[in-house]
Amino acid sequence: MRTLSSFINGSWQTGTGRTSTLYSAVTGEPIAETSTAGLDLDGALNYARTTGGPNLRALSFTERGALLSAMSKSLRNHRDELIGLAADNMGATRGDAKFDIDGASGTLAYYAYLAKSLGDRNWLLDGEQVQVSRSKRFVGQHILTPRRGVAIHINAFNFPAWNMAEKAACALLAGVPVFEKPGTATSLVAWRIGQLWVEQAGLPDGAFSLLCGSVGQLLDHAQSQDCIVFTGSGDTAAKIKTHPNVISQNVPVNVEADSLNGAVLGPDIEPGSDTFHMFLTEVARELTQKAGQKCTAIRRILIPEALLEATLEGLGERLDQHVVGDPTDRKTTVGALSTPAQKRDVAAGIAALEASGARRVWGDPSAVPAAGYFVAPQVFLTNDGADAAFVHDHEVFGPVATVLPYDGTVAEAAKIIARGGGGLVTSVFSNDRNWAGPLLLELAPWHGRLMWGSAKVHDQGTGHGAVMPSLLHGGPGRAGGGAELGGERGLHFYLQRTAIQGDSALLKRVFGTAE
Amino acid sequence: MRTLSSFINGSWQTGTGRTSTLYSAVTGEPIAETSTAGLDLDGALNYARTTGGPNLRALSFTERGALLSAMSKSLRNHRDELIGLAADNMGATRGDAKFDIDGASGTLAYYAYLAKSLGDRNWLLDGEQVQVSRSKRFVGQHILTPRRGVAIHINAFNFPAWNMAEKAACALLAGVPVFEKPGTATSLVAWRIGQLWVEQAGLPDGAFSLLCGSVGQLLDHAQSQDCIVFTGSGDTAAKIKTHPNVISQNVPVNVEADSLNGAVLGPDIEPGSDTFHMFLTEVARELTQKAGQKCTAIRRILIPEALLEATLEGLGERLDQHVVGDPTDRKTTVGALSTPAQKRDVAAGIAALEASGARRVWGDPSAVPAAGYFVAPQVFLTNDGADAAFVHDHEVFGPVATVLPYDGTVAEAAKIIARGGGGLVTSVFSNDRNWAGPLLLELAPWHGRLMWGSAKVHDQGTGHGAVMPSLLHGGPGRAGGGAELGGERGLHFYLQRTAIQGDSALLKRVFGTAE
Repeated sequence: MRTLSSFINGSWQTGTGRTSTLYSAVTGEPIAETSTAGLDLDGALNYARTTGGPNLRALSFTERGALLSAMSKSLRNHRDELIGLAADNMGATRGDAKFDIDGASGTLAYYAYLAKSLGDRNWLLDGEQVQVSRSKRFVGQHILTPRRGVAIHINAFNFPAWNMAEKAACALLAGVPVFEKPGTATSLVAWRIGQLWVEQAGLPDGAFSLLCGSVGQLLDHAQSQDCIVFTGSGDTAAKIKTHPNVISQNVPVNVEADSLNGAVLGPDIEPGSDTFHMFLTEVARELTQKAGQKCTAIRRILIPEALLEATLEGLGERLDQHVVGDPTDRKTTVGALSTPAQKRDVAAGIAALEASGARRVWGDPSAVPAAGYFVAPQVFLTNDGADAAFVHDHEVFGPVATVLPYDGTVAEAAKIIARGGGGLVTSVFSNDRNWAGPLLLELAPWHGRLMWGSAKVHDQGTGHGAVMPSLLHGGPGRAGGGAELGGERGLHFYLQRTAIQGDSALLKRVFGTAE
Repeated sequence: MRTLSSFINGSWQTGTGRTSTLYSAVTGEPIAETSTAGLDLDGALNYARTTGGPNLRALSFTERGALLSAMSKSLRNHRDELIGLAADNMGATRGDAKFDIDGASGTLAYYAYLAKSLGDRNWLLDGEQVQVSRSKRFVGQHILTPRRGVAIHINAFNFPAWNMAEKAACALLAGVPVFEKPGTATSLVAWRIGQLWVEQAGLPDGAFSLLCGSVGQLLDHAQSQDCIVFTGSGDTAAKIKTHPNVISQNVPVNVEADSLNGAVLGPDIEPGSDTFHMFLTEVARELTQKAGQKCTAIRRILIPEALLEATLEGLGERLDQHVVGDPTDRKTTVGALSTPAQKRDVAAGIAALEASGARRVWGDPSAVPAAGYFVAPQVFLTNDGADAAFVHDHEVFGPVATVLPYDGTVAEAAKIIARGGGGLVTSVFSNDRNWAGPLLLELAPWHGRLMWGSAKVHDQGTGHGAVMPSLLHGGPGRAGGGAELGGERGLHFYLQRTAIQGDSALLKRVFGTAE
């Protein structure tokens, strides 16, 4: 059994005392243990702030971009090793693991490329000089400078590579040292990636720390120039946001939490058409990929009543092709859930879904291996629309989604989707811009991302569930109210915006000008 | 004695039961009372959401700008009446009242003008279409749409006009209805302004509500698409941010709280020079204007040791010209504090400042009228630099500031200012860009705004304490971590950013393109 360590204060350290155990998702056998007990977390944060901060801020955007490039390369060079760890620790199929790992290396590469456009400064100009009085000489210039603290990243179990990499890319490029706390249960992958970055990416001292195991009293030591980015459950998010020290220090918290993402089939879509097949492809993929353990997975499927029968039939045909089982078997398309706790939660969720009146319209719950944490994909249906309280309030975080027939109108679709209280992403499938346009505008305030599937892009989309680094990731309300990525926007949470007033000529000499 | 009412659910209503009493700051006599007990706050918020929201969203930016223009005009037309109310209720001199009221009408006029550049749409494009895959046809476009809730504005006692107007300008222009809760003790001015807007600005039904008195259980009824903007103490901010319903609904909260703003005199500034006089003018104004009750007022004055004697002498000469007394007397330059609680707090703050070792170097505490809530301007001095804990941790919210001699280096000035834990604004006075430039970059992550005073703009600045609508207002850490104003940036808190992916041609047809 491996013992995972943490990289803090510039060295790999192992906690003492209470340990957390990591299990194989396939066999249920213990595979590793880790502990953070006894580690000097206050000192570790301070090391990142006082050593990593100045080291990173001394680099230009171009130089920071080169670090991201090396981090990306280290993942590509160890891709097969990481895929193997993901299969064992997480029950991930080869495709699932690639989705996570390639997402990580791709996002790092994207930000390495973006860095080139930000130039050789180490702060950003935000807009042009603005006149603030009758005088043309006395003006204001907004700039963005890196926060002087550490970026505390607390990540979820389901994307140990991508979650860690996308947050690290934005923080490091902004010039803020990263203190990474991966989800403990699947931290084998994150731990190995941390090793690769420390050994191969040329990161300056203190720029990257990794805490494997319990978060302990970490947040007691956060300071006002630090920031916290969290991906995980709404319950844990609430604890972080109300933590007494986080509140008293006004530490900014960016949250990506629960989301009951939707897919809406437009009434104009003919069964058998390209857009119809695009819809089926997206829904089937979102149900099965990573065994449904994606924050962006489709949980609510809106189908016009007139198209219900044909759509359920088409969806069933797609899903019939899937095979649940050992993720290392090449025939397998649906792996295991990552942890025993997830399997228990999903089983309880399915029971509650059935108790709420939803009925299973596809899937055989019993068709799974006995060992490990497998759950069979299942599709439910309810005719309760916006009144289906459980469906709109509880995310069953596994290969489970619910069909909600609706009357085909924009108003009804918008009402049902909005009932989810804010989400990461909803997809709309229609070739009628006079129907889809108004629906997208109705849905926009409830979402961080919307995908519009239509005939001419039926085979060109990047997928409902794939988070693109150039586009915003995060959503309002239940989804946590956060914002990550979106190109340069992803850096802004790590930067302080400041308006500087003064003599126009002097400001130009010191800060430069926007071209 | 007047009874103030609240404008909710489309009509003026008066609470029953427990009342709050407003006093004259000059005589200490009661002048008005108000109550919110028994008002249907849940219904009132819902009226704003369901009536005001659709009414505002149906308007284009241009049309919303016309509303702001009418709101601005109503203040200008009743300027003298409002000045009279401010003198009585707040102890404000004519100059103090004009600063507040003209700030309000000016900010509304600024956003009315900005509206013209936003066009006849009712959403905003955020950047251009971005390619997200190899396909040029499948792209992403970020848009900004108004949140579907109500903007709950909880304001401070010290700027009843400006505070209300600047928040209202941004929310209404964004398309979000305003639910205004002014500081109760000085709500006479806010109440009258509310009447003017309701009667004269042509606001659509539900777009503006005004709650005069206790906030009651208002936050129990906030929903996820609402937002809260608060100006006031850090203690109250913490209560709002941790309110169980605010947390469970993930209601976004934007805070502007305490700030120990600074002024730094550069070692290159000759006593008697233009920049030296600019420094004295700013420090003296910030100490006396509104009797120091400004969130932007200078609390910490950094003077190079070599310039200390000459600077204290020059500052004393400026301050000797000020007269404390009846704000309606034209000779008066320093009015009263606004409330008995403020007078008590400031007296306790001065006692603690003295107990901490700071000594008074200018001012006569006894030279004030016996009635009302007057406090004489006072300047203290400590040689403890960054170790002067009380000076850096406690804002004495009155005509009180502390001089901190320093060694004239960038490093020492930056260290002392940063010890305040984040502020709204600090001013730096220097003609040496090789000294001021690095200091401004050191100070930037700790501030929302910096003012750089220098020779060629010595008579052109808009003032350290004046908040300009085109520039960011808000600061990190102790200052609350919020952001208001800054031109179009001021609308963003009220808008949801959404990435929309799809067919480039269809997206252009529905959403248009950035020019």
